[in-house]
Amino acid sequence: MEILSGIFEGHTTGAPICMLVWNKEAVSSEYDVVKNLPRPGHADYTAYVKYGGFNDYRGGGRFSGRITVSFVMAGAVAKKLLRLFGVEVLAYTRAIGAIEMKETPTLEKIREETYKNPVRCPSLVCAEAMEKAIIRARREGDSLGGIVECIALNVPVGVGEPVFDALDADIAKAIFTVPAVKGVEFGAGFKAAAMKGSVNNDQYAVRDGRVITLTNNAGGVLGGLSNGMPILVRVAIKPTPSIAKKQKTINLAEFKEALLRVEGRHDPCIVPKAVPAIESIVAIVLADHMIRAGIIPRVLARKMQCRRE
Amino acid sequence: MEILSGIFEGHTTGAPICMLVWNKEAVSSEYDVVKNLPRPGHADYTAYVKYGGFNDYRGGGRFSGRITVSFVMAGAVAKKLLRLFGVEVLAYTRAIGAIEMKETPTLEKIREETYKNPVRCPSLVCAEAMEKAIIRARREGDSLGGIVECIALNVPVGVGEPVFDALDADIAKAIFTVPAVKGVEFGAGFKAAAMKGSVNNDQYAVRDGRVITLTNNAGGVLGGLSNGMPILVRVAIKPTPSIAKKQKTINLAEFKEALLRVEGRHDPCIVPKAVPAIESIVAIVLADHMIRAGIIPRVLARKMQCRRE
Amino acid sequence: MEILSGIFEGHTTGAPICMLVWNKEAVSSEYDVVKNLPRPGHADYTAYVKYGGFNDYRGGGRFSGRITVSFVMAGAVAKKLLRLFGVEVLAYTRAIGAIEMKETPTLEKIREETYKNPVRCPSLVCAEAMEKAIIRARREGDSLGGIVECIALNVPVGVGEPVFDALDADIAKAIFTVPAVKGVEFGAGFKAAAMKGSVNNDQYAVRDGRVITLTNNAGGVLGGLSNGMPILVRVAIKPTPSIAKKQKTINLAEFKEALLRVEGRHDPCIVPKAVPAIESIVAIVLADHMIRAGIIPRVLARKMQCRRE
Amino acid sequence: MEILSGIFEGHTTGAPICMLVWNKEAVSSEYDVVKNLPRPGHADYTAYVKYGGFNDYRGGGRFSGRITVSFVMAGAVAKKLLRLFGVEVLAYTRAIGAIEMKETPTLEKIREETYKNPVRCPSLVCAEAMEKAIIRARREGDSLGGIVECIALNVPVGVGEPVFDALDADIAKAIFTVPAVKGVEFGAGFKAAAMKGSVNNDQYAVRDGRVITLTNNAGGVLGGLSNGMPILVRVAIKPTPSIAKKQKTINLAEFKEALLRVEGRHDPCIVPKAVPAIESIVAIVLADHMIRAGIIPRVLARKMQCRRE
Repeated sequence: MEILSGIFEGHTTGAPICMLVWNKEAVSSEYDVVKNLPRPGHADYTAYVKYGGFNDYRGGGRFSGRITVSFVMAGAVAKKLLRLFGVEVLAYTRAIGAIEMKETPTLEKIREETYKNPVRCPSLVCAEAMEKAIIRARREGDSLGGIVECIALNVPVGVGEPVFDALDADIAKAIFTVPAVKGVEFGAGFKAAAMKGSVNNDQYAVRDGRVITLTNNAGGVLGGLSNGMPILVRVAIKPTPSIAKKQKTINLAEFKEALLRVEGRHDPCIVPKAVPAIESIVAIVLADHMIRAGIIPRVLARKMQCRRE
Repeated sequence: MEILSGIFEGHTTGAPICMLVWNKEAVSSEYDVVKNLPRPGHADYTAYVKYGGFNDYRGGGRFSGRITVSFVMAGAVAKKLLRLFGVEVLAYTRAIGAIEMKETPTLEKIREETYKNPVRCPSLVCAEAMEKAIIRARREGDSLGGIVECIALNVPVGVGEPVFDALDADIAKAIFTVPAVKGVEFGAGFKAAAMKGSVNNDQYAVRDGRVITLTNNAGGVLGGLSNGMPILVRVAIKPTPSIAKKQKTINLAEFKEALLRVEGRHDPCIVPKAVPAIESIVAIVLADHMIRAGIIPRVLARKMQCRRE
Repeated sequence: MEILSGIFEGHTTGAPICMLVWNKEAVSSEYDVVKNLPRPGHADYTAYVKYGGFNDYRGGGRFSGRITVSFVMAGAVAKKLLRLFGVEVLAYTRAIGAIEMKETPTLEKIREETYKNPVRCPSLVCAEAMEKAIIRARREGDSLGGIVECIALNVPVGVGEPVFDALDADIAKAIFTVPAVKGVEFGAGFKAAAMKGSVNNDQYAVRDGRVITLTNNAGGVLGGLSNGMPILVRVAIKPTPSIAKKQKTINLAEFKEALLRVEGRHDPCIVPKAVPAIESIVAIVLADHMIRAGIIPRVLARKMQCRRE
Repeated sequence: MEILSGIFEGHTTGAPICMLVWNKEAVSSEYDVVKNLPRPGHADYTAYVKYGGFNDYRGGGRFSGRITVSFVMAGAVAKKLLRLFGVEVLAYTRAIGAIEMKETPTLEKIREETYKNPVRCPSLVCAEAMEKAIIRARREGDSLGGIVECIALNVPVGVGEPVFDALDADIAKAIFTVPAVKGVEFGAGFKAAAMKGSVNNDQYAVRDGRVITLTNNAGGVLGGLSNGMPILVRVAIKPTPSIAKKQKTINLAEFKEALLRVEGRHDPCIVPKAVPAIESIVAIVLADHMIRAGIIPRVLARKMQCRRE
């Protein structure tokens, strides 16, 4: 990773920070097959139509999971900023295929265990089962999806702009930008739909001089504004579309039905890679909103001064 | 409803269309109780903190469901526009509380039955059960949530802008703007997380000279772009927070715990009102994106010319 | 003027402030003549083409000077805000037709004299000559333009965002939005083009513990950022296009050359009306930028608290 | 110059085009002197305050003329696009210091002569005098400013969005983004302020089946919309602030008055370099607005198809 601008003597200068990761490992020839045979479940066909047949069908483009490296780069800056204000963002794999963590892990477990295994799951037992499931799926020429959960701690009350840039709305928009996301819910989410108000409402209490809620079905957002409780988001990731199994598609050049079998090093499960992407993009939205609300001062250089010594 | 600008001799002029609905029925005094006692599950507390105690605590503000009347007004224009291009947007109540339609209704049923009952459910059997459940909840001083589904038909392929304004991302953002929404999913949504790629991928076929997919687990969006299949969105609505049951809250003036019982004409279930709001806001996003993509020409006055005769 | 939203018990609530002025005095029939005969110098023709012949040709639309009432309404709020931070914006008529104030008036004169005469000129001698020139122009069926100057005092150093939203760039954009503006210059402006660097450069000094410049050829902006000196803008206003003299135009319905003589109550000089419009729009840009820079806190309700007692 | 993205097999792909020019020639040590001694007329002081003393004081940053290379890079793409629609943008040096071209040159002269001399002036006689004046100024340790004119031909009628994004407003904003610009005027500009309406109004006629105006005092823009006549913009460029002559400044570290003499390879006149920057940025604004108006289709890949053969 190279930093081209915006940093001088270890400090931000206020100029845009340009970071660059070269996409060196792409083997473009692997994508020749999909030039005319769009992969089911992938954006090959929609991009082909949108760009009049001139889309860049090779891997690594904007419809590839590789784009999330940019989310992680920007997220690294956002997280540094948030840390100065005590805000922490944590994501982890909650489910892969049929294997799902039943209990919500403690924060300590999430912090310590998530990055100790390749599937980014804080439960070692689940992590092992998930790995096996992925290996099995790959052997079958198939792929798996899963669920990622993301928690943001210590977000001050009142972050978010009602109606046009509600906090949950902006977080949802950002998360849907991560490829393969098909659903986003906050707190009790879809379960809240079947609850009664008296159960779903998070009642208030005072603890240690701070207002808290006794439950967190709202997932930390009320009326598009943060309420001071942890922001909880649950994200559905679909299985990777590029699979080795034979699938029905169309030949775009000849405009007739065809069969496709995708070869190459395609990942049988992108959920583990979605974990840092979602963590990062949530951090970006929070940092943006806290700057906008004036909680994080726009001029960060001043903040950085104290770190100089 | 008054139209203040933008229409001249029955045609749009290209100037902004200003529509006005007076919020006449609000009984502001009903809200006096919540001035210092924020309702659990409502934005009273978050708005109080954000606006330094100077928020307008009375009903009808931007944190009230009443704001959705503006979505419906703008949606009426968006739908007129979409209709010129063959695009139709339909929403209906899929579930209220524990009562859920098991089968997805036909388009004909949605078009014909949805607005024939007060709960906006195209199944008359379910509608009756939902009504009863709402009446029961009200009697108990409680409230219900539910699920709204929205379908957009005939959206051309390639609508949406990758990465920064993906179609599903913008639809999700818009829907989270509707008060009480806690979850949004497209197509198979959270179910896709447990599917294998070979099942979830929508395989392609040609029918009547058009490319279609044999299933629609994607819900009409691939890579943030429409794929020509119906756009399917499922929305979780939480139960109304304003309930008559006694709840724990805090007294903001005295900063201590308190009890609250909300009186007044509060709706025990806002799901039926969310139906036109969601339908409208999805139509707004689609119209915006189709204008942006150049599919709907920006100058609509020319289009309107044919209606003059 | 009616305030429809955003104010509660004399305080802003954080919701959008909607202000409404009814355009009651318009005599729409006066504009029938220009429906097919576009006025030279006016936007009749360009709007006709842009909106496919469905533009609203009657007075009071977005191409009318009447739109500036909205700038003045929003400017009133912006000026209240700026005043809390010591910033003052003053505009006045510097020239009308051939009559121009030779000397720059003192701030005291601008504050006290500008609104004492109908042409908004702080020099009474010039004001009288300007009034006579306008009366003469009207008698001749003609019209006059002029120059407006605008000064913003006490803007803190560093307001403006380099490259994409430079302060002078945003002020210029906003001023060109005022109808009839044909030129904008800061400080020495076009005169700077013929100066040497050693003359044009504003050298620095320290006075009363503050950094100042010994001259103000920059007009208070360096590198798109305010430098703490008064922001000086000079604006060229063209003569009103609607004149009684016979002019060559085209008949749009028949697409052939025609003659036009504009009747009605058209103003022979809009410069005096441009004064509050320019003052307001500069205030709006400054308030926006100071909010953006975090100098004016986004949550104003807190500020307003002190006014409650 | 490297192109990092957005181009594939000689065609745009619809992805962002990232172009990179390495700022290799900067001799950063030359700027050590200005770290604490801000140059009069330059952004050193305003950036220092804005960024809390952590601005990047070395040359090549966002307050340097070097940033205009990015305008020229983007402008190259915009001009390619505009050319497909017959739009041509031409800029040239009209004046340097006291030497000004009296007559407006023909389009042929501008096209053929401008880039034949280092000052970018289509009159060879003036160009020679300008060169001499620049050499003299440098010898005196001083600098010169000047005037650049820019013409855009064949812009269709109706380009621009009234009120919020008027064409002249957006062009002015973009031009003020070019460092050292202090004034922008359209058509007759500041001269229009002293004209009568009957003289300034551009009367209409029909020539070869097209609507034209007999004069072009409006400079091609009426009501913020293009009127089909050439767009004429005149831009005042101040003399380069970095001069060798001794100037009064302040020592920011010690907060006291000081003297500064700027050494190094500073350009005694940046007007010639402003010519392509202004031409480019006007082209960018026009391309953006023509895309927005739907005149240039957003999907350019289709257009490019014809160039494939």
